[in-house]
Amino acid sequence: MRPKDLSSRISEWFQGSGPGADIVISSRIRLARNLAGYEFLPCLTQQRKRQILRTLKEAILGIDLGESVFYVDVDGVPALEQELLVERHLISRQHAMGKGPRGVVIAASESFTAMINEEDHLRIQAFQTGLQLRPCWERINHIDNLIEQKVEFAFHPDYGYLTACPTNLGTGIRVSVMLHLPALKMAGQIDKFLQAARDADLTVRGLFGEGTEAVGDFYQLSNQVTLGVREEDIVNQFNDVIVPKIVEYEHLARRKLLDKQLDALDDKIQRALGVLGNARLISSQEALFLLSHIRLGVNLNRIQGLSIRTINELFMLTQPAHLQMNQGEPLDADRRDATRAGIIRSRLCRN
Amino acid sequence: MRPKDLSSRISEWFQGSGPGADIVISSRIRLARNLAGYEFLPCLTQQRKRQILRTLKEAILGIDLGESVFYVDVDGVPALEQELLVERHLISRQHAMGKGPRGVVIAASESFTAMINEEDHLRIQAFQTGLQLRPCWERINHIDNLIEQKVEFAFHPDYGYLTACPTNLGTGIRVSVMLHLPALKMAGQIDKFLQAARDADLTVRGLFGEGTEAVGDFYQLSNQVTLGVREEDIVNQFNDVIVPKIVEYEHLARRKLLDKQLDALDDKIQRALGVLGNARLISSQEALFLLSHIRLGVNLNRIQGLSIRTINELFMLTQPAHLQMNQGEPLDADRRDATRAGIIRSRLCRN
Repeated sequence: MRPKDLSSRISEWFQGSGPGADIVISSRIRLARNLAGYEFLPCLTQQRKRQILRTLKEAILGIDLGESVFYVDVDGVPALEQELLVERHLISRQHAMGKGPRGVVIAASESFTAMINEEDHLRIQAFQTGLQLRPCWERINHIDNLIEQKVEFAFHPDYGYLTACPTNLGTGIRVSVMLHLPALKMAGQIDKFLQAARDADLTVRGLFGEGTEAVGDFYQLSNQVTLGVREEDIVNQFNDVIVPKIVEYEHLARRKLLDKQLDALDDKIQRALGVLGNARLISSQEALFLLSHIRLGVNLNRIQGLSIRTINELFMLTQPAHLQMNQGEPLDADRRDATRAGIIRSRLCRN
Repeated sequence: MRPKDLSSRISEWFQGSGPGADIVISSRIRLARNLAGYEFLPCLTQQRKRQILRTLKEAILGIDLGESVFYVDVDGVPALEQELLVERHLISRQHAMGKGPRGVVIAASESFTAMINEEDHLRIQAFQTGLQLRPCWERINHIDNLIEQKVEFAFHPDYGYLTACPTNLGTGIRVSVMLHLPALKMAGQIDKFLQAARDADLTVRGLFGEGTEAVGDFYQLSNQVTLGVREEDIVNQFNDVIVPKIVEYEHLARRKLLDKQLDALDDKIQRALGVLGNARLISSQEALFLLSHIRLGVNLNRIQGLSIRTINELFMLTQPAHLQMNQGEPLDADRRDATRAGIIRSRLCRN
């Protein structure tokens, strides 16, 4: 299996099903680990990077993950394939842009990946559709234990797992959910949400994590604190308290839109349909922005005959690298915009 | 006949036919006249205003205009009816907003109106669809002569006709055309056009004349100089030199769009169709802006099955006073936006 084999399908965790999936698009947990006896990434020679890569790759490929896996040599694949992996959240932008020996093990379902030589020697992550942080945790914890039977991780009895960046020290865990909060945005309450998140030591980012802006009302919410807490506590707090609270606020805002601003709501939704169904050129940013409105429309039953799955497909397949991979050729920005518009038009009309 | 009887139809001069109508929407000539022996408007008592109104009204209603006419007591009708007359260009905003005895004689075809006690005692104007300034001139000149057989106008042997504002002194003529210049706008050349117009002592205004901004790529172009020139020379210069030159530039820009930017052009046109065909709320400004793109699309054969007449109807009938008059009740801005969107949707879908 190669990255381009993924380009025409959507990831399992992005199907739009699962608990609370009208608001919680997906759940993700990642763990940061480093091999004992090696420097952190910035100080490693190429040779030692290669040793780490070989050691971890063998260890992970030797584990039974309950499904087939494949390995991608991130350093060796063309930039377009790297970009495709980023668009599918299988590797981080940092991993794609990095230098030197590095790679990623990917489960065929895309619900698990292991980045080797990203910021830490190893970052493993598990994905689920909807709000399903506990299954993510169980899986990733299990895999972490299996790997630890084969290699020794840098661990300090007082601090816990050692990481390249001190913000990951201790558990090395990052718990995150991708949220769709269009009603809070329309109601002008999104800043309150952002402030409350900061007050609770949470981080809010855009669709593609660190350094990316929220586009199309999609927000990635994650924990900041990794030291001095138990992983299960973070996971449970997220799954049972924090996310349900936000979901409740978004639901409230959606009900208010339905009750008091139905015209404005329908206007937004129908305009989005009108533009996506007719535009001849469309940027990925604008597509995301408009698909967000349509997603809301479907979830509130203001649009019939269109599935969340179709919308998620459009989200995924109209990203620049996906577009080009599926067209089988590199496209400049203008041609990408034209191709994207064509795909969206034909997909929306078919429904 | 009353203003509200006009509200569901479009003016003859706004049919979108006539020479060069893909760019020149309409032609208009107005003459400013004042009665001899009376002060100008700002200095008149109510009583003398009434005398002027009576004198001019009788004179004009006594003339054979070749069609039926009706009189509207602008001072006496409700604000909504005044506004309707403004939206149809039958009176100026200044006339609507004025105070004291004033009125307008309107030809049933709406191709001629005579405003009494606007800025001058009398302003008569003739309209034609497309570029037809000479027919406008012949008609208005003929009517002017007929009126002058019944009343005496303030006239100075050196200066010509005296007017309240010195910019109208002499001939009192204003020749103007309403132009649709979307391609020059898209090509970023509209500022050159505006500068060239200023250099040629011409005035460019928005759809509703003085003090209004150009919206939706519609521009009203008119002469500034009224003193020391023959009316026929102004008319011919406009009709045969100035306007054809602008039309040529706009045609050139349109051909360039077709040849080199077809995707961007179609995108603009189809988006406009998509939004107008789906929006649930739409302001008159946005409607104008989008209808402008659709008008271009029809004129360039990029849209089938839609007539310029339908577009012009939408221009006219979705204006605030028209909307409310046709709905039979006053509507606040939100309800106007919803009603407007509904009318546009149903009209575009029918086609």
